[in-house]
Amino acid sequence: MGKFSVIFFPDNVATQVEEGTSLFKAASQAGIELKSTCGNRGTCGRCAVLVKEGKVHASGGNVPARLRRAGYVLACQTFVEGNVVVEVPRDSRLDEHQVLVASFELREEEADLLAGYELEPVSRKFHIELPPPSVSDNTGDLERLATALRRQGYAGEPQVGLSTLRSLAETLRSGAWRATVTLAATNGAMELLALAPGKVPLRNFGLAVDIGTTTVVAHLVDLNTGVTVDKRGTYNRQARYGDDVISRIVYATEEKGGLDELHKAVIDTINELTEELLGRNQIAPEEVTAVVTAGNTTMAHLFLGLTPKYIRLKPYIPTANAFPPVRAGDLGLAVNPGAWVLSFPAVASYVGGDIVAGVLATRMAKEEPLTLFIDIGTNGEMVLGNRDWLISCACSAGPAFEGGGITFGMRAMKGAIERVAIDPQTFEVEVKAIGGYRPIGICGSGLIDLIAKLRRVGLIDRTGHFQRDKGTPRLRETEDGDVEFVLVWGAQSESGKDIVITESDIKTLIRSKGAVFAGVQSLLRTVGLELAAIDRILIAGGFGNYLNVADAVEIGLLPDLPATKYRFVGNTAVKGAKMGLLSRRALEEAREIAARMAYVELSVGTTFMDEFVSALFLPHTDLSLFPSVKH
Amino acid sequence: MGKFSVIFFPDNVATQVEEGTSLFKAASQAGIELKSTCGNRGTCGRCAVLVKEGKVHASGGNVPARLRRAGYVLACQTFVEGNVVVEVPRDSRLDEHQVLVASFELREEEADLLAGYELEPVSRKFHIELPPPSVSDNTGDLERLATALRRQGYAGEPQVGLSTLRSLAETLRSGAWRATVTLAATNGAMELLALAPGKVPLRNFGLAVDIGTTTVVAHLVDLNTGVTVDKRGTYNRQARYGDDVISRIVYATEEKGGLDELHKAVIDTINELTEELLGRNQIAPEEVTAVVTAGNTTMAHLFLGLTPKYIRLKPYIPTANAFPPVRAGDLGLAVNPGAWVLSFPAVASYVGGDIVAGVLATRMAKEEPLTLFIDIGTNGEMVLGNRDWLISCACSAGPAFEGGGITFGMRAMKGAIERVAIDPQTFEVEVKAIGGYRPIGICGSGLIDLIAKLRRVGLIDRTGHFQRDKGTPRLRETEDGDVEFVLVWGAQSESGKDIVITESDIKTLIRSKGAVFAGVQSLLRTVGLELAAIDRILIAGGFGNYLNVADAVEIGLLPDLPATKYRFVGNTAVKGAKMGLLSRRALEEAREIAARMAYVELSVGTTFMDEFVSALFLPHTDLSLFPSVKH
Repeated sequence: MGKFSVIFFPDNVATQVEEGTSLFKAASQAGIELKSTCGNRGTCGRCAVLVKEGKVHASGGNVPARLRRAGYVLACQTFVEGNVVVEVPRDSRLDEHQVLVASFELREEEADLLAGYELEPVSRKFHIELPPPSVSDNTGDLERLATALRRQGYAGEPQVGLSTLRSLAETLRSGAWRATVTLAATNGAMELLALAPGKVPLRNFGLAVDIGTTTVVAHLVDLNTGVTVDKRGTYNRQARYGDDVISRIVYATEEKGGLDELHKAVIDTINELTEELLGRNQIAPEEVTAVVTAGNTTMAHLFLGLTPKYIRLKPYIPTANAFPPVRAGDLGLAVNPGAWVLSFPAVASYVGGDIVAGVLATRMAKEEPLTLFIDIGTNGEMVLGNRDWLISCACSAGPAFEGGGITFGMRAMKGAIERVAIDPQTFEVEVKAIGGYRPIGICGSGLIDLIAKLRRVGLIDRTGHFQRDKGTPRLRETEDGDVEFVLVWGAQSESGKDIVITESDIKTLIRSKGAVFAGVQSLLRTVGLELAAIDRILIAGGFGNYLNVADAVEIGLLPDLPATKYRFVGNTAVKGAKMGLLSRRALEEAREIAARMAYVELSVGTTFMDEFVSALFLPHTDLSLFPSVKH
Repeated sequence: MGKFSVIFFPDNVATQVEEGTSLFKAASQAGIELKSTCGNRGTCGRCAVLVKEGKVHASGGNVPARLRRAGYVLACQTFVEGNVVVEVPRDSRLDEHQVLVASFELREEEADLLAGYELEPVSRKFHIELPPPSVSDNTGDLERLATALRRQGYAGEPQVGLSTLRSLAETLRSGAWRATVTLAATNGAMELLALAPGKVPLRNFGLAVDIGTTTVVAHLVDLNTGVTVDKRGTYNRQARYGDDVISRIVYATEEKGGLDELHKAVIDTINELTEELLGRNQIAPEEVTAVVTAGNTTMAHLFLGLTPKYIRLKPYIPTANAFPPVRAGDLGLAVNPGAWVLSFPAVASYVGGDIVAGVLATRMAKEEPLTLFIDIGTNGEMVLGNRDWLISCACSAGPAFEGGGITFGMRAMKGAIERVAIDPQTFEVEVKAIGGYRPIGICGSGLIDLIAKLRRVGLIDRTGHFQRDKGTPRLRETEDGDVEFVLVWGAQSESGKDIVITESDIKTLIRSKGAVFAGVQSLLRTVGLELAAIDRILIAGGFGNYLNVADAVEIGLLPDLPATKYRFVGNTAVKGAKMGLLSRRALEEAREIAARMAYVELSVGTTFMDEFVSALFLPHTDLSLFPSVKH
């Protein structure tokens, strides 16, 4: 096969590729990151480019009509057959706010994280003093160390790796029988992770990591005190391979080397966070001796390099729900290579360790009140139960509330519209963007507010269709035959383009909110309970922080229960992971929670589908379920 | 530093070395193996060479007088300072019988090896069938496998490595939910060592290895049946660094990279045996999934790459007595890299896993009779006890009975004199060499017989001094002022040289036998018992096979007890290792034996020294201890 050059404009960068390489890959190789939310399957239409010169083979895909007319092709569906010159429009690029390497500060507090638990971290560092050997006390060095550990309350034989054992004799003697021990506990065994001569400062740190489909959050924890030293989040670098777990699974299983790429992407993401956290706190990688992660089942698979293939195929089977401990070095994590990496156990293919961590962190599995725990992410996982029983499901809500699949959807960050006001007479719009910036797009809470307001002023009906007779220039037909509502005119927006919401967007949002509500109803049906039986609703996830419950109830996303029953619990995945990092009992409880939580597969039977269809109205076909909205 | 060439004659081979390299190293680099029994300390005088041309720095050492007069220097004490030409005499080379790579057949049988134990090998390979998953039975693959294992009687969570886990989903599916499992048990945990799709033939093998200071013996065992498929022995390639553990320890700790060289030497030795055993039985390295070794404490340290430094220094502390399991891959063994390598636990620095294996194999720790177990090797370890108590010691007998330190000493192999007859009138000698070959040297049993006969015909007195007034030309003075007795005239010997025994040799042998007997007496003293209390004496080790008990008693090496109390038990180190390989209970018992065996440090107190001095006569100062000899 020949090699051809591909030149990208307006950047004017060139790269050499093999014949048959996609323009998407060529662009990436040239340092130009294109948008994609479908995992390069040609369905999202976001990576459109213009071939100015040269021979390519374009296999089609879903190119938006107006772009197709202008000669655009999808970069992921167009393959190099000669030297090519390509023009990359601004819209097809991951812009500043989507650059995957940007990480962000986190400001959530958790004063009582370990309430009810003892500080018993995965790994401990402490000083030890051994009686020097003599002719009358001549046991081996390892046995002498084991005896000293027993005296300090660590029972059992410590497991020792070959390299530690090889330096044991000199380490003990050069420290004059005083040493600094790092001991790790996994699988019920006790392992001598490191041994340093003499009494060295007891610096010992751990990482708790929430591996989200969209964002990855890492907390750096002082294992001596349990104090969170620092925290940081960033976008999961897997995002370029697709927005949701399904497109990641497709990429991992259908592209050659895809699994490896996704595995590396998440490891790189975590390493980037780790290096930032360690760098600015002046901590050496060797001083991080334990890592605990929580993520959905697919994320956990990709993190460990396990194929997620059968998660997507009926009957939806993961390689594992309970993941064995792995060495950091074997995963290429930028911490002490001997550190154990523990992954929170999953319940099933679509209820993962992040949800188990959430149940652990909220203590709902230890308490009396009937609790509904909802994580309105891409998968829309939820758990219903209390200390006696727990059932869970995932309702495939889709990424709409995270900005995915919505024309101007974006995540809750600077420039995202989060509140909307519409004048009921003039239909003029006022928006509030996060950080007071010029608006760029709309985030989840903005979208929920927008739907509620569009409905309230009568611009849409209960099925989400625009009422075209309102005589406002903001309502207009698109080139594709869709209808859209202009939220912000180009003159006021950051990009200079009109920010709109289309009827298709609204349909997508209604399907998402309908799926969540149908999930709640299905869980209640399974145990024969009514909405009113729920004592409290815990909203987890970053999205929850910006959510207006009244809006969410108004559109039928959340049950119509008193606001006092709602509580935002924040990122419980990272909280739970941190509890596991700091308390062996919490880790044990996580295993118990995963084991005793029942999983309801919504695709089996007709309950969910019936509930879903009924929920495709604003707020619902059955208004008796939403008395406050009806009113 | 400059590089110089060294040319060796008569081989006419050249090599390039750094300035300051010893001629011994240069010779080794050129493929010429020189004798050495002192670990290149310049004390054994065996590596004498002649520098014909060029500049060297010779630092002396113990060059035998007649060689020194002829201008010989010790290769290990002579360092290159320019281009050099060296002549290597035949006597300084490891000859055909000492070439370290030669391996030999083993013919010992052990019909009832596992009597009283169940076949429960370290690793097992078996078929398993899993119910295929369905929507109503949708646990993860790993959990499904664990359930199936539980149904087959394997309790607990199997530990799984990352690579096995990564292929788990495809392995199970490509075998249509039938698989072949290799399960290893270590440290009380169960590990999934390998998983193959479908029902593949259950070929599963293990190695039991006796790592002796002088020889290494490997048995290849079918783990499905417990049958020994094949066995083979060879010389420990460490031999070039010294004959006994002390010279090995000196080399390992005083030479730069010495530990690594010795570690590699024993690994290479085992790999050579393994490759031969696997090759001629058409077994793939991957099919060997467990290795159990037994060796003295120093050998175990060198095998694992642990420094033996403090074994030699008071108060004689090993890095470990109980060695943790290690992966074959981490040691570089030529078997399945995931195979666990278990080392038999030691009791102390000078009573090692080989002795524990011997106690296990002989069952003496489970039975009533008071048993004395003796391994007359270099260290002269012995154990006294029964099911109620066990005490042990090592008496530093030295390598004399293995041929070490004796002018014509050699190991029991073809051409070694094993029986001697001396005419009491003419002092003419008849010898019998092993295999009917022309005699080359004298092995341990030959030496014992020779001393007994020399004493019986009055050629030596009770202190081992030659009686020069016997008027036989066989008795003559040496150039060094020593006295020697010609056993075989050059005309009859393989080398054409007279085979002699010197008065120094006899002194060395008396010291060796005295040390063994003093060890026995010291153990008895420790528990306040007399020789007559011993119900049986078990003689272990390869040497035992050729030993004549009457001779050994006559020179005072072994206690004067009825021949019916003596039993040769052969290589119990490899037998015990094999029991451990095949029975988890045997492994557990080995740990118990090591833990409950008391160790008597003979260098503490005066008991041993008093007994030793009393035993430096033939057979002993106290003839009442040897009534049959007195008679």
